[in-house]
Parts: sequence; structure tokens; C-alpha cells
Amino acid sequence: MLADFDASGAGSPGLGWNSSDPVEVRRRIRTGQYNGQTGGLAKGCVQANFAVLPAAYADEFARFCQRNPKPCPLLAMTEPGSPHLPELAEDLDLRTDIPSYRVFRDGELDGNVASIGNLWQDDFVAFALGCSFSFEEALVDAGLSLRHWNDGSVCTMYLTDIECAPAGRFRSRMVVSMRPFTPADAIKAVQITSRYPRVHGAPVHLGMPERIGIENIERAWEGDDPVIGSGEIPVFWACGVTPQVALRAARPPIAITHTPAHMLVTDIRNASLAVG
Amino acid sequence: MLADFDASGAGSPGLGWNSSDPVEVRRRIRTGQYNGQTGGLAKGCVQANFAVLPAAYADEFARFCQRNPKPCPLLAMTEPGSPHLPELAEDLDLRTDIPSYRVFRDGELDGNVASIGNLWQDDFVAFALGCSFSFEEALVDAGLSLRHWNDGSVCTMYLTDIECAPAGRFRSRMVVSMRPFTPADAIKAVQITSRYPRVHGAPVHLGMPERIGIENIERAWEGDDPVIGSGEIPVFWACGVTPQVALRAARPPIAITHTPAHMLVTDIRNASLAVG
Repeated sequence: MLADFDASGAGSPGLGWNSSDPVEVRRRIRTGQYNGQTGGLAKGCVQANFAVLPAAYADEFARFCQRNPKPCPLLAMTEPGSPHLPELAEDLDLRTDIPSYRVFRDGELDGNVASIGNLWQDDFVAFALGCSFSFEEALVDAGLSLRHWNDGSVCTMYLTDIECAPAGRFRSRMVVSMRPFTPADAIKAVQITSRYPRVHGAPVHLGMPERIGIENIERAWEGDDPVIGSGEIPVFWACGVTPQVALRAARPPIAITHTPAHMLVTDIRNASLAVG
Repeated sequence: MLADFDASGAGSPGLGWNSSDPVEVRRRIRTGQYNGQTGGLAKGCVQANFAVLPAAYADEFARFCQRNPKPCPLLAMTEPGSPHLPELAEDLDLRTDIPSYRVFRDGELDGNVASIGNLWQDDFVAFALGCSFSFEEALVDAGLSLRHWNDGSVCTMYLTDIECAPAGRFRSRMVVSMRPFTPADAIKAVQITSRYPRVHGAPVHLGMPERIGIENIERAWEGDDPVIGSGEIPVFWACGVTPQVALRAARPPIAITHTPAHMLVTDIRNASLAVG
């Protein structure tokens, strides 16, 4: 099973501490007091997909992101060796501030760990990529209803036949996430998510799954199988799982990502990413 | 047959005079030297739907427009008795500057005339409403292809079961215009036309004609029957024919509109209407 970067919707854990403060969220994670999913924490703040690679692969991966901004919207990348991204949060330490990490060796999952200080290399370059949580919050704030938020399921994902632009050893077909909407809400969803190009932006497709290589819309490639109402059409967004597929294809000796649904919590406000 | 406000696409008539200058276009029309369709004239400038009503009906019609901005995007309205709208063009005289007018009495078409100076009343209020020409130009400028522009047909229109918000004696179901696009282009079309709320704005529907009361997508209610490719979905915009249906329903003793495809040519640039 492939890890899904953009797995789950919101949910307020009711943790007994101030889980709305991103600094406090990171402090709890850093000190081992919290290691759960991040959906619903630090509401209003950007949560990011995370990946770290040796410098020998990082330039190619950065190029892959640049060429495929819808599945791989690059929010920030570190200087080689630095575990800090002050533009996302002043106190952020990427070695400790994510609740759970996944370690890949030669493109294969080697296990999950709670921190990566002992794995950190001087040539590591870390990447923070936009995540669908941000645009989902914008959709819900605008009054749209997300079925997977309401029923607690995992957003449906499909592997399409859309080829991403390759960069060096990085290549992948595009993974998409799907949310069903009435036609009128689908139009609103295009309008709203168009304002958020740094978190996947507008949909890449709607209404005709077979045209992007999805043979059976009823069957998820990742996440839960969908429920699509008779008055609804499927709307497809480029998905943050795509770079993970590319990362595995490149088979770097080591690569580290967040564990699905255990995201990098930043201080940046979702609303601040809006354009137009 | 109902008159279609938003009938035809572009086309460069090659008239032997400077038809790209809106002032010259109006001067030729005013002096009787031109009385044809306005598509392709004064390219880049807003062309508007036109309606004039006695003051006793005008307030209700203004309210109808205000409540239904997608089919009736009100660009400008005159002071009672004034035939001028300097915000659209300094020299504009609404009694003479449209190539052909339609006169309605008690809601019934009474005939077409070349000018309305002899019909003008001191209590007339004139309205200029946004027209699909403006957003179609934006779509084509963005690289999208409009079938009815390419094959010289009239854009397909349908009467839906979407009830407009009534205002006094004015009421109508919404008329929509339809343009077929691939899903990817449909998304672009939503993005582009969302920037033009003063000329119908974003689509009101896509993909499921039966959901808005269109029983047979193959058969136009107005305009030409559609050609929809196998990889295309129908995209529906609110149409400027809607206010004409409402105007007829109100049955004012006299009302005057432009003749379909013979629009009010203004000095305002289409691009200046863009928001966001």
C-alpha cells in the first residue's frame, strides 16, 4: 500500500491542551507528548507534505516539483543540511516536529520513526509541499460539504494516465484525489480552489473519469471507495501522493517523508495563500 | 420565436472603414451608414444588451436585474428621460446608436426600427446589460476554442426550470447559453469567466442538463442545435435572453430592446471588467 500524503479530513481531537496554537502543537510533538494525526489541529494554519532527500537527488526533485506544480506545489525547501524553514515557522525543527516519519531506503519503506535526528545528514535537503487540507478548509468555509469530512472516511484517490513531466530520475503518473459535488457546487469548488495554487489549486478534471485513465470510478486506488450521489459529478484534484510515487521511482539510498495524515504544522495561515 | 440577446459570435466584416474604433462604429450607425450585426466590430470593447422601459416599470426591472445578476448583469441605467450613458461612451445617444431596435407593445413584438427618437418618452429609463461577447472574447484570448465561433453557428440556448427571483411584474425562468468543452477546458472556462461577473460571470451549471430541466440536450430552445463531442461536457451560462422573457411577461405598454446580434457598442474595454 502506498502512503497517502493527503489522507484525511478534519476532526477536533479535544486533547486538553491548546491544540489551536501551531507553536504549542509543534512543542508537544517535539517533546514526545503528541504523536497522532494532525487533522483538526492548529485550525486555519497550513499543514504541509514533507519530504527529505540527499542533495544528489534534491535538485532533480526540486525540478520535478517546479515542472508539476499542481501535484507538487513547493511551499519551501531548506538549505542543504539545515533542518529549519523559518518562512513556515520560526521555531520549526524538521527533525523532531512531525508526529511520525516514514523512512525509505532505495525506494522501499523501511519503517516509521518518531524523530529523525539520528538519521539526519549534512547533505539533506527538506521540502514542504502544499496539502489538500488547506483548500478543503476553504471549501468548507465557503459552505460546501465534503463527504469524507462528514462521514470520517479517507478521501478517494486514483492513479491516472496523466504523465507528469519527468525530471532526472523522478517520474510518475499523476495521482488525483476525488470529491463528489453537484454541478453548481463543482463550479464553486473550481472558483474557490483556483485561489489556492500553492495547495494544488484548481481541479485537473471533472465528470469523465475514463478520460484520465480511471477505469472503475467505484474502486479507490488509495483511500476509501467513493460514494457519489445521483446528482453529483466527480471532481478531481492533483494529489500530494504523486511526488511520493516519483520519489519511490527514483530509488534514492535514503528518503524520509511524513507518515500519512501526520503532517508538518506551520504558522502560515491558509487564507494567506489565497490569490486573486 | 423569441429574440436572442446574445446571439452570435465574432466575425470581421471587412467594411472598408475603421470598424475597430467604437466611436466610428457608433457614428456610422447614427448616420445610417451601418445597420448590420455588431459581432467583430470594435474588438476588445464591451457590447451590451439594451432595454428601455417607462419609469413605471423601470424600478421593478432594475430590481429584477439586481436580484438576478447572473442572467441580468446591469452595467448601467439612465436617469429617467435621458438617452445618455456617459459612463459607457461620452458621445452615446441611445436613440440612434444601435443598428436595429425591436419595439414591443404589451409584451408583443411590434416591429424593428433603425432609430427610436420618434418613440422616445420623457419617462423612459434605459438599461445596458452585460453580454456574453465579452466573456467569449476572454475565453478565446485564453486559447479556448468556441465551436459556434468556428463554424459560424448561433450559440445554443435552453430554457431551464431555474426560477429567477421575481420583482413586481417581472418574472422568468432562467435561459442559459451552452458551450461544449473538454473537462480540462471546462475548468479553465469556469476560472476565466469567474473573473467577469458583470458579463454573466461563471457558469451556472455543467454536465447534467436534466438537473436544470433540459430534457433534450440535442434540441436548442433558441439558437442552433448543438454539436457536443464525445469527450466534451456541456457548460451552461446564464443568458441575456432571460430579461427579455421577463420583460415580455411584465407586458409594459411599450418596451424597446436591441435586435438580436445588433448590440450597443461601448467604449469600455472588456479587459477592464475583469476582477481578481
